[in-house]
Amino acid sequence: MRAVDIIIKKRDGFELTKEEIQFFIEGFTNGTIDNYQASALTMAIYFQGMTDQEATYLTESILHSGDILDLSAIKGIKVDKHSTGGVGDKTSLVVGPLVGSLGIKFAKMSGRGLGHTGGTLDKLEAIPGYDINMSEDNFIKQVNEIGIALVGQTGELAPADKKLYALRDVTGTVESIPLIASSIMSKKLASGADAICLDVKVGSGAFMKNEASATKLATLMVNIGKNCGKDMTAILTNMDEPLGLAVGNSLEVIEAIETLNGRGPKDFTELCLEVAAHLVLAAKLAHTVEEAKVLLQKQIDNKEGLNTLAKLVKAQGGDSDYIYHPERFKKAAYTFEVKALEDGYVGHIDALAIGNAAMMLGAGRKKIGDAVDHSVGIVLAKKVNDKICKGDVLAVLHANQSDVEETSNLVRNAYQISKTLVDSKLILKIIK
Amino acid sequence: MRAVDIIIKKRDGFELTKEEIQFFIEGFTNGTIDNYQASALTMAIYFQGMTDQEATYLTESILHSGDILDLSAIKGIKVDKHSTGGVGDKTSLVVGPLVGSLGIKFAKMSGRGLGHTGGTLDKLEAIPGYDINMSEDNFIKQVNEIGIALVGQTGELAPADKKLYALRDVTGTVESIPLIASSIMSKKLASGADAICLDVKVGSGAFMKNEASATKLATLMVNIGKNCGKDMTAILTNMDEPLGLAVGNSLEVIEAIETLNGRGPKDFTELCLEVAAHLVLAAKLAHTVEEAKVLLQKQIDNKEGLNTLAKLVKAQGGDSDYIYHPERFKKAAYTFEVKALEDGYVGHIDALAIGNAAMMLGAGRKKIGDAVDHSVGIVLAKKVNDKICKGDVLAVLHANQSDVEETSNLVRNAYQISKTLVDSKLILKIIK
Repeated sequence: MRAVDIIIKKRDGFELTKEEIQFFIEGFTNGTIDNYQASALTMAIYFQGMTDQEATYLTESILHSGDILDLSAIKGIKVDKHSTGGVGDKTSLVVGPLVGSLGIKFAKMSGRGLGHTGGTLDKLEAIPGYDINMSEDNFIKQVNEIGIALVGQTGELAPADKKLYALRDVTGTVESIPLIASSIMSKKLASGADAICLDVKVGSGAFMKNEASATKLATLMVNIGKNCGKDMTAILTNMDEPLGLAVGNSLEVIEAIETLNGRGPKDFTELCLEVAAHLVLAAKLAHTVEEAKVLLQKQIDNKEGLNTLAKLVKAQGGDSDYIYHPERFKKAAYTFEVKALEDGYVGHIDALAIGNAAMMLGAGRKKIGDAVDHSVGIVLAKKVNDKICKGDVLAVLHANQSDVEETSNLVRNAYQISKTLVDSKLILKIIK
Repeated sequence: MRAVDIIIKKRDGFELTKEEIQFFIEGFTNGTIDNYQASALTMAIYFQGMTDQEATYLTESILHSGDILDLSAIKGIKVDKHSTGGVGDKTSLVVGPLVGSLGIKFAKMSGRGLGHTGGTLDKLEAIPGYDINMSEDNFIKQVNEIGIALVGQTGELAPADKKLYALRDVTGTVESIPLIASSIMSKKLASGADAICLDVKVGSGAFMKNEASATKLATLMVNIGKNCGKDMTAILTNMDEPLGLAVGNSLEVIEAIETLNGRGPKDFTELCLEVAAHLVLAAKLAHTVEEAKVLLQKQIDNKEGLNTLAKLVKAQGGDSDYIYHPERFKKAAYTFEVKALEDGYVGHIDALAIGNAAMMLGAGRKKIGDAVDHSVGIVLAKKVNDKICKGDVLAVLHANQSDVEETSNLVRNAYQISKTLVDSKLILKIIK
């Protein structure tokens, strides 16, 4: 088998076999196939696409390039969730404790933030003492005991993905649906869960700019997961504004705590319940999404979700008192109000701009390895379809610097003011 | 400027600017742009194509990566020809002396053969003493004196092409028309001629499998040349059989000598006159192709073409007596007749198979650096539309080995026997 023949076969629109895809990914991982052949193949895939079967083989080949977590020692159904990268997305901090409190095993490895997107690990580290590092044995033990663990990556999961993504990033093939799908799914499958709920963001601020492409990506990921024996759900959600109100590490943890207390923002609460409901269905604790949501609402009302978050924090070395007394989180030195310059309704909030503004305040990283300031961020005061008058506060900046003019302007300009109410819907579609 | 942005721009179907193409080729040549970015760009070009203007910029960028011959010290119009790679193609050995004998300056650098394709340099070296190496000064001096020089490459012409072609070869982008056109034209332009006649082969044995793709390639090369101020002609020729009868180095030189004596095979003579006629037109020595052909036929009849070949051989250190006494060429040890197994007409002769058979006998190279046996080869006895009876000699193998069974079979199978006459035409189209 020769790499160039595989490239030409894909270039000419033929379906690659399992053996061909394996040969290429193995060779690429161990270096016998060069970067320049891999970049030519990925560009050919960009143009010719892949069948669901090819994308499954690609996912499996990437998956088998590294360690695969064996969660069989965890009793019961193991669930996981993944979001394609949102601004203000602290869903794991609410969904995990809610389903964990019902005895469903939420065994999740998360990542750090980069650019406008926050990372769950950075948010968790806003809680003093919280340790994201854990051995595989302890990870399994903790999930068995309290139903949840939220840690950084252990072992070397899907190293081929890391290498391939770095190459795609500099050769113009990031935006290929089968390559995105296999990248995400190889890592998800390596984490060993039985059921996975994917949140695929749609909109100008998201990776998928329209519902058609997001549907394609979501459907392909669901099919790859099913081909690998997983229970799959994908939820298409609108990213025409940030999720919830808070963007920034401590601020988002506080919002998650508020949500587990039943006082969360409407849109964020809705999404958490939807994601969690599909995991409850996968665990066969309910027959319908509605039934599952009733069950989950009970875990909010009786504070069992909140208690599970506190147990998680404690188990991982954090100060769980912060969960019951979020006013203890260290505050930023300054707050600044960003005010409206005209009357109308909020028509759209550029999530990417809000994410970048939070990064400029220090909440996120420009590049890998940058330090993160947990206390800073942005809290939106107005969301899409809120009525505003000139002078109203649109958002509050929490900063450790006194000069925030550029950031203020960025946030103000992120608000697009409309004369009328706009069509707005958070959850666009469920793909099973 | 970033390489990845240029890749993405082309991937998305936009036209690249002169600056972008220059930046990429310069970076690729000096190593600041990596192979993996170049292979991604060439794959994007494969799918999205290039406008004539982009292909011209690409050609010029590759051209300027190395030396450009300055032929301004040669008096009068300088002409060149190029064939896209034929079997039995010894056209330069006839066209050069014919136009040279008319005072048109034929200043040509040739290459060596590889695979099924023969190289003009190898053919010339079949003449004892012929030296293909020459300084640029002597090259210019010789062309001024006798109207012709046929040498190997001097200086480093278009090194970016060499690097890019090697990369395309292993990444599946050899078959891209703008990349082929810029590769050929960058080297032709580096050789400094004012007028260029291209012979673009069409057919199962050629690089361009059909007339439509060959027309595209030829038109693009003509336009690139014109954009660079050259007088351009492209001739589309059928490669449904080898050109002429002889395939192999000495055998082809002998056939060229026969042709300059007016006794050449019909198809080969026709092509030589056509190519030479367009160079005569470019030199303004005739008003029409017909008028030019009359002039050229005179140079055959009065032996001035043959005398110019002899002058060329003498000037480059060869024994010019061989030109007048071709029976002196060293003969192969054995000849074997390949005979027909059935009655009918010759419908098609697989030129690629004949080229490979000659290579197996030692006339060509399997890989760069292999030695070549000048005396061996194949002489066809039957050509397309010749009537054949079972037992008739189809071709004669000239070999220095006694076991030629495999080669004989290859040659016999290269002949496709038809029950009826077939449509056959050597010159398909002229593109100016």
